[in-house]
Amino acid sequence: MISHTSNRDNNNHPPTSTRPPPPEREKKKKLSTHPRPPTTPFLASDHQDSKKHLLLATTGSVATIKLPQLLKALSQTFSPESLTIHLLLTRSSENFLTPADLDEASANPLVSRVWRDADEWAFPSGGVYTRECPVLHIELRKWAHVLVVAPLSANTLSSVIVGRCDGLLLSVLRAWDWGRGGVVVAPAMNTLMWTHPVTRGQVDTLREWGVEVLMPVSKVLACGDEGVGGMVGVEVIVEAAGRRLGISSVEEEEEEEEEEEKVVEVVGRVEG
Amino acid sequence: MISHTSNRDNNNHPPTSTRPPPPEREKKKKLSTHPRPPTTPFLASDHQDSKKHLLLATTGSVATIKLPQLLKALSQTFSPESLTIHLLLTRSSENFLTPADLDEASANPLVSRVWRDADEWAFPSGGVYTRECPVLHIELRKWAHVLVVAPLSANTLSSVIVGRCDGLLLSVLRAWDWGRGGVVVAPAMNTLMWTHPVTRGQVDTLREWGVEVLMPVSKVLACGDEGVGGMVGVEVIVEAAGRRLGISSVEEEEEEEEEEEKVVEVVGRVEG
Amino acid sequence: MISHTSNRDNNNHPPTSTRPPPPEREKKKKLSTHPRPPTTPFLASDHQDSKKHLLLATTGSVATIKLPQLLKALSQTFSPESLTIHLLLTRSSENFLTPADLDEASANPLVSRVWRDADEWAFPSGGVYTRECPVLHIELRKWAHVLVVAPLSANTLSSVIVGRCDGLLLSVLRAWDWGRGGVVVAPAMNTLMWTHPVTRGQVDTLREWGVEVLMPVSKVLACGDEGVGGMVGVEVIVEAAGRRLGISSVEEEEEEEEEEEKVVEVVGRVEG
Ligand SMILES: Cc1cc2nc3c(=O)[nH]c(=O)nc-3n(C[C@H](O)[C@H](O)[C@H](O)COP(=O)(O)O)c2cc1C
Ligand SMILES: Cc1cc2nc3c(=O)[nH]c(=O)nc-3n(C[C@H](O)[C@H](O)[C@H](O)COP(=O)(O)O)c2cc1C
Ligand SMILES: Cc1cc2nc3c(=O)[nH]c(=O)nc-3n(C[C@H](O)[C@H](O)[C@H](O)COP(=O)(O)O)c2cc1C
Repeated sequence: MISHTSNRDNNNHPPTSTRPPPPEREKKKKLSTHPRPPTTPFLASDHQDSKKHLLLATTGSVATIKLPQLLKALSQTFSPESLTIHLLLTRSSENFLTPADLDEASANPLVSRVWRDADEWAFPSGGVYTRECPVLHIELRKWAHVLVVAPLSANTLSSVIVGRCDGLLLSVLRAWDWGRGGVVVAPAMNTLMWTHPVTRGQVDTLREWGVEVLMPVSKVLACGDEGVGGMVGVEVIVEAAGRRLGISSVEEEEEEEEEEEKVVEVVGRVEG
Repeated sequence: MISHTSNRDNNNHPPTSTRPPPPEREKKKKLSTHPRPPTTPFLASDHQDSKKHLLLATTGSVATIKLPQLLKALSQTFSPESLTIHLLLTRSSENFLTPADLDEASANPLVSRVWRDADEWAFPSGGVYTRECPVLHIELRKWAHVLVVAPLSANTLSSVIVGRCDGLLLSVLRAWDWGRGGVVVAPAMNTLMWTHPVTRGQVDTLREWGVEVLMPVSKVLACGDEGVGGMVGVEVIVEAAGRRLGISSVEEEEEEEEEEEKVVEVVGRVEG
Repeated sequence: MISHTSNRDNNNHPPTSTRPPPPEREKKKKLSTHPRPPTTPFLASDHQDSKKHLLLATTGSVATIKLPQLLKALSQTFSPESLTIHLLLTRSSENFLTPADLDEASANPLVSRVWRDADEWAFPSGGVYTRECPVLHIELRKWAHVLVVAPLSANTLSSVIVGRCDGLLLSVLRAWDWGRGGVVVAPAMNTLMWTHPVTRGQVDTLREWGVEVLMPVSKVLACGDEGVGGMVGVEVIVEAAGRRLGISSVEEEEEEEEEEEKVVEVVGRVEG
């Protein structure tokens, strides 16, 4: 269900992960499900369909370990007929994902692609940009109806606020059409990072730009401290994404269908 | 005409480009034209002459593909007797330059050096700094009469505004003598990057610091979108550079010479 | 006296230094003095003792070459019974330290550890984070009674101000408990970097957060320029660290002991 995009590393950053490559058999399976060769550039205009498009980004917060849980909740709530998801992983966030997590993500019926920073610079023409090369962060912004950043790290928060854009996620955010809304973030960080003097003003600024901020909750954090900073529950993120995308959950769809059937029955009876 | 400075990579960032090394023959040619071994540090005081010195920087905007055009226009407008150019390439900007572009730059009669981030940390003493090592960004600031950043990316704009300086160009800008002016920038970015809420304030700040901002124009951008964000024409950059440097174009020089000749003639006739 | 922490490079940045590895003999000596295998994570709770804990960070300013002098002054002023020091080196700052400097630091009786950016991501479990992994920047913040950044570079200053935290030192600063104070910084930079329009406001902000800023002094800088920007003398840093930590210098201790002896004598005489 997934096409692993080319991970050729000709961008600004070295790979973070030292984990071993997946076993050969698995790799082959994945390659064989590739809908197109990985060096073919992604064009939003090639992916126009009736589905809603969710760009789901993770950053270097420990809450990224909840990605499998979040994806499971999404696929239990929405049907592949109404929603497609692209994942976008910052380098730091990859430190919190095991190969098993990524395999599980690949198998999720909603997920169709995984993007990494390196993909931004993976030009098909031997690593050199030509006028024909599409710009990935622009294409992703055009493709996505909604961008959810969950978790949002303190570092990415501080970067987006000053307009820094030396990574794929930051570039998508810098090139976002702020007039149309559509960005949801779920900050997650140590309590003291959250109560740091810069945070409040930055969150306020995000809101002024129209971002929906799913405020962190109080809990025992990974570091053992207790306090505000934990990411909201995945169900809150699922709800916000669905609302922003304007799609019904599978349950609602079934209810709607039942309603329609009832209406049809009633109409039938009246007409009949 | 060019001395490729050492590109030994002991700085903070890995190389971005995966393009193959230039063929052996070409390499030899370049080495033989080296005016000095590449590990000799650059000292502004060794390069005092009657010429004007232009530090021309490119950043990771797609408009960097116009560098050949800009250099050609500069060399058609100014003579090598009045102007020397050093290029300064951020890592991202190298993704937009082909080997052929760099060769053409080398062959330009005005260009005498190309600087990259790695050069800042290429200490002659085996990679370790000693008290005798000059500081490249300080030397370049002393050497340059005018700094032109064309194109200026959204990312470099946001970085210079907060005073970030983890790259050669940013360090030159942080160590610039703002009292004396001399900085010209030509922003170039996607329309939505340009209309992003942070941009206007950042451009205003640059102007408060005395920077001449060549405002982007409306055009069909590389990404296919139409709108404001395109880099001004190269002739506008050439004009601004010349004006700031206080040098005449070749044409003006010829006109001046003609004027002088006329004056001499007249004076001669009067006196004669 | 030192345990070199694991330097496995699975973090966001490549190593900066190209200096050759230390000779075999020396390496062995160091390994044999290792108090614990380098992959065992550091937990503040394992290091509770009656000593004061100083986290001493260097950044990419040329004043980092004074680290040996600073450590010497610290060890001449405070006793290993009252003070333990952990060093934290940003990547850039390593360019200013020779292998000999690091050996000398290792031999210093106060220094028990050296931390680098890479250590933040050196998870024991094969490079992948698990819920059991402690978070190094949180542990260091808990361990340290006082954090001294000497020298503080222009770049790190600008980063901490916006809340950026993509490095170990920046993460410690972002997760610092600003309510309790305990941060001392000694800025050091070229005069024009110091007089740059952004600097004053950033220094004021640090002070609002409770940071003690040891203002730079006027001197002939490494780059040959003269002006304000030089790091304060090491004795000023030692004094500030001792005051913040609330520990007496060896001299004061001796004086106190003499005082106590005198008191005992007097008391003895009175009582006797
Ligand atoms: C194909 C492509 C084209 C890009 N074009 C632009 C652009 O025109 N303007 C811009 O500000 N950023 C552009 N970017 C994003 C920058 O390259 C990115 O922010 C980079 O980190 C800037 O680095 P620098 O400012 O250090 O040079 C582009 C990126 C890609 C991959
Ligand atoms: C030889 C040399 C000397 C430098 N000296 C200083 C300095 O004294 N102060 C400063 O703020 N930056 C100085 N810099 C620039 C910093 O090293 C650069 O901004 C770096 O990215 C800082 O990294 P850090 O803040 O992460 O340690 C110097 C750079 C070089 C190459
Ligand atoms: C084990 C570990 C856990 C971390 N957890 C968090 C976190 O929960 N929230 C956060 O904002 N940063 C956290 N950090 C720090 C970020 O990973 C760091 O700032 C990183 O540069 C963020 O990168 P990104 O914003 O580009 O994804 C953690 C770091 C480590 C090593």
